[in-house]
Amino acid sequence: MIRKISIEKGVSVAELLDQFAETAFNARRLGEAGRIYTQMLKENAFIFFSLAGAMMPAGMGNVVRGFVENDFVDAIVTTGANVTHEIADALGYSHFKGDENADDVELSKRNVNRIYDVYIENEAFEGVESFVSKIFQELEGRYSSFEIVWSVGRNLPKTSFLRICYEKKIPVFCPTLHDSILGLHLYIHGKKLVYDPRKDVEEIVNLCFQDEKMGALIVGGGVPKNFVLQAMLLGKGFDYAIQITTDSPHWGGLSGATLDEAKSWCKLTQDARSVTVYCDATIALPILYAYLLDRSQQENF
Amino acid sequence: MIRKISIEKGVSVAELLDQFAETAFNARRLGEAGRIYTQMLKENAFIFFSLAGAMMPAGMGNVVRGFVENDFVDAIVTTGANVTHEIADALGYSHFKGDENADDVELSKRNVNRIYDVYIENEAFEGVESFVSKIFQELEGRYSSFEIVWSVGRNLPKTSFLRICYEKKIPVFCPTLHDSILGLHLYIHGKKLVYDPRKDVEEIVNLCFQDEKMGALIVGGGVPKNFVLQAMLLGKGFDYAIQITTDSPHWGGLSGATLDEAKSWCKLTQDARSVTVYCDATIALPILYAYLLDRSQQENF
Amino acid sequence: MIRKISIEKGVSVAELLDQFAETAFNARRLGEAGRIYTQMLKENAFIFFSLAGAMMPAGMGNVVRGFVENDFVDAIVTTGANVTHEIADALGYSHFKGDENADDVELSKRNVNRIYDVYIENEAFEGVESFVSKIFQELEGRYSSFEIVWSVGRNLPKTSFLRICYEKKIPVFCPTLHDSILGLHLYIHGKKLVYDPRKDVEEIVNLCFQDEKMGALIVGGGVPKNFVLQAMLLGKGFDYAIQITTDSPHWGGLSGATLDEAKSWCKLTQDARSVTVYCDATIALPILYAYLLDRSQQENF
Amino acid sequence: MIRKISIEKGVSVAELLDQFAETAFNARRLGEAGRIYTQMLKENAFIFFSLAGAMMPAGMGNVVRGFVENDFVDAIVTTGANVTHEIADALGYSHFKGDENADDVELSKRNVNRIYDVYIENEAFEGVESFVSKIFQELEGRYSSFEIVWSVGRNLPKTSFLRICYEKKIPVFCPTLHDSILGLHLYIHGKKLVYDPRKDVEEIVNLCFQDEKMGALIVGGGVPKNFVLQAMLLGKGFDYAIQITTDSPHWGGLSGATLDEAKSWCKLTQDARSVTVYCDATIALPILYAYLLDRSQQENF
Repeated sequence: MIRKISIEKGVSVAELLDQFAETAFNARRLGEAGRIYTQMLKENAFIFFSLAGAMMPAGMGNVVRGFVENDFVDAIVTTGANVTHEIADALGYSHFKGDENADDVELSKRNVNRIYDVYIENEAFEGVESFVSKIFQELEGRYSSFEIVWSVGRNLPKTSFLRICYEKKIPVFCPTLHDSILGLHLYIHGKKLVYDPRKDVEEIVNLCFQDEKMGALIVGGGVPKNFVLQAMLLGKGFDYAIQITTDSPHWGGLSGATLDEAKSWCKLTQDARSVTVYCDATIALPILYAYLLDRSQQENF
Repeated sequence: MIRKISIEKGVSVAELLDQFAETAFNARRLGEAGRIYTQMLKENAFIFFSLAGAMMPAGMGNVVRGFVENDFVDAIVTTGANVTHEIADALGYSHFKGDENADDVELSKRNVNRIYDVYIENEAFEGVESFVSKIFQELEGRYSSFEIVWSVGRNLPKTSFLRICYEKKIPVFCPTLHDSILGLHLYIHGKKLVYDPRKDVEEIVNLCFQDEKMGALIVGGGVPKNFVLQAMLLGKGFDYAIQITTDSPHWGGLSGATLDEAKSWCKLTQDARSVTVYCDATIALPILYAYLLDRSQQENF
Repeated sequence: MIRKISIEKGVSVAELLDQFAETAFNARRLGEAGRIYTQMLKENAFIFFSLAGAMMPAGMGNVVRGFVENDFVDAIVTTGANVTHEIADALGYSHFKGDENADDVELSKRNVNRIYDVYIENEAFEGVESFVSKIFQELEGRYSSFEIVWSVGRNLPKTSFLRICYEKKIPVFCPTLHDSILGLHLYIHGKKLVYDPRKDVEEIVNLCFQDEKMGALIVGGGVPKNFVLQAMLLGKGFDYAIQITTDSPHWGGLSGATLDEAKSWCKLTQDARSVTVYCDATIALPILYAYLLDRSQQENF
Repeated sequence: MIRKISIEKGVSVAELLDQFAETAFNARRLGEAGRIYTQMLKENAFIFFSLAGAMMPAGMGNVVRGFVENDFVDAIVTTGANVTHEIADALGYSHFKGDENADDVELSKRNVNRIYDVYIENEAFEGVESFVSKIFQELEGRYSSFEIVWSVGRNLPKTSFLRICYEKKIPVFCPTLHDSILGLHLYIHGKKLVYDPRKDVEEIVNLCFQDEKMGALIVGGGVPKNFVLQAMLLGKGFDYAIQITTDSPHWGGLSGATLDEAKSWCKLTQDARSVTVYCDATIALPILYAYLLDRSQQENF
């Protein structure tokens, strides 16, 4: 039965999400995501977190750090762009509230780069370059992307999830490292450093062969989504999967594909529990995190 | 500056929304909606609430009632479908959690009707018909849609926002009354009752000529959105507008049109404050309501 | 088997659409729409054409006229806005190519109204008002929307589909007449003229009780879509349905609902043949029309 | 002025597209794409073609080959998936018309993999593996992705665009090679073969420093889009860009970002001519190709 949402003054995010689960459409889907996630945590599943989209520029860095600090995730797959912008933040550069209808030529003259309604100045990228160039110059040989990201994270303050991942030895796969400003810096400054994607494939495939229950939190599509799912082509299939996306199945692409479709490829097990939430992740991800923070401490898993 | 979201255990919806306002994308837009709405309330604006989409089947009835009970809105424009399903709920019939991938032919054989992932049985509509047929049979002459809806609301329990609207004399315009199951019942049972759209136009245009600041909360598109905005073609323009939609501007239709476009038509004033939130209203509307509940009592407006 | 598209110089639209049908995603869906439509025509189905969205401002008026002239449709359900803009066109006023990023306040000062990337000047609406005011002043009593639209169409040149519909006695239902500029003119000038929605409901329900096979071409959502489908609640169900939309099922609303969902309501027959094409109708509708023009004359149905 | 579309029997795709350019919404955008592209060809621009999405499974392989054979593009950036499926096609394996609502567990038991409404059998991937394993075993040392793709293309029949690209020395960048089934085969069989992304970055950056006018045809988002645009961070900016996408700007991600946004990053020149077409590429790309085929031979550029 659909239960009508009933809101009291001061309602917590966690309480609201529990109510969402008894409604319909994407409120229900988001509520179901909360329930699947708590089940994953209770069963100590190994959880991949694929993260596409401009989440760092949008101010989601501490939410990601929270997932890491609270052991809500065990491995991350993200874009070079998110790593780049997280470094900028960690070094003290800011992203700014901008106007999505701004005059972009004018912005370019002011050395301001636009990401929808977020601005970042060129000097932030110069700061990142200065910081990583020293790190990249010292590295030699063939590295996986997560080893490169760890090398960076080691040198960042504890406010950054990249530092926490380094300390916890949580791999941050970045299979599109070369497709980012960080990748350009690597190309320019890491003359003796080779990013070897094979090492990424080897490691992620290994992670898929663990005995634990396997779960995935998929935010956005693109390579991060595919890299996680594809690794399971060789594994036993995910037991749980949560997808937060603004893409649609009916365009036919992988980013919008349903998690059912993944079952035909055996990327999910036949009886996997999964849900897709159609929602901007800047809204859905903090809500999901707030819920987990509340419920995990309450239920002590 | 973008401020990273920082979430503590037990965070309230209102606290989270305040943080949303300092981020990006649709989290920021939803945060801005909260701020615009509190400003509308502080300035005692007259607020139209246009409500399209299957919000009643989705369990949003009490949220709408909350808007009404707390004087967050002064006039409603909605679809015949929402009124029909609200009556069903108020009469004790349930909507059920369904499966959007169900076999629809099978459902039809079981007399179950599907609205995405919500089910409702035929007997609910039979109950509605039985209830409204008596009311419609007693009405005679030319009625506006909101007079018809009040006539219904008067006979419903106080759990329904339709009853509260009747008591508070808040008009619930339903300019597409005939385009709903309720409209079919009207056609069958209200032989002496004429729904006269002219009376709707007269009243809504009158409402647009008040001295107060004028505001609009627009949920979904379609006729409810247009009926509110068009009335202002003859008025002075909205000073505030909040739009929650899943449509997009680039398809060219009114439902997805930006609120800036409405300025070219003078439906919004030149310096109107407005925001569009691209989000499923089952998520965004309860969040906005929870925020208002919190902030309005706190700030005593 | 998927057959790869193979294009020769000078390929016709009809040839391309036949190839689309053997591919995937929305190309296939559009191809399937062509096939379903030709089957409807061969079987002499009675075809409803629901038309939402700003199709007249977008330059689709002659395409609609073509559907009417070639007997591809038997009844139309559209918005007051489309009728209003068709009148403006027929009277010789133009829509202009505009810029969707224009300064809307500036436009309003120049008396230009924007519909995404289309402009129309206030004087066009003044011309429409002057034209229809005379017609409305002469009408007296209760009219259906299609009678009102016929009264207008009778006075327009043969370049307009409204004139052709009048001559062919093809009803143009406009159940949201009052929700348009035309409706405001009606409210102002048609003092003795009552738009009675009941007459619309009566007539469209009657049309649903014919012996022929029943079909629907649904462009966009909103009231036009629902008004056609709902009429079939009392009828035997559509045997064929084609939907062209840019909305998505997963938002839960009627506009984006699948045609399968309509089967649970018995609005489509159990074994109805149907397809949804996810595409801007400014692209899909002319392609579909070009296909029908070609195939209908070739196969002589 | 908006010119109404006027369609004669047998209208060609090229004629229709010319008419589209004088209408509105995405028909106009697609028409404008045709015009920008012909201008690029007349000016002998160097044209990048970024191709994301499951275009090969959808039957678009020969369209892509047409772009290559007719010198409409000078460099391609695509996904490992598209290369994998093109190899399968070229080896004689088929993609099949499937049902997007199929039972995916059932499909998995039949060794059928689903891509929305397309099926492909496991044996196709086994065939690909058998074919590429021999090639990969013979390669030794550090290769760029386009060198690896050329090595494959050399061994394919002339029906495949990969063979044509090899012969014409048109680079097919595949910066996410490792994120595909082909990448898994590389990981398993190419023990002495290292895919070195640095070589991709070097080459694409070099290509951005040419004297010619620079253009981009961007189909879908993801890494292919970003890899092309990012290379221009170091170059002079694109003079022309056409984007065909089903994503939206308001979600904030790169895939849906406007081409104006790219100007703030100087990825496009200040006065670049560009357009975004919001349409399924299975519809828009063949139309654009048919137009170019017609117009290029007619105007002899």
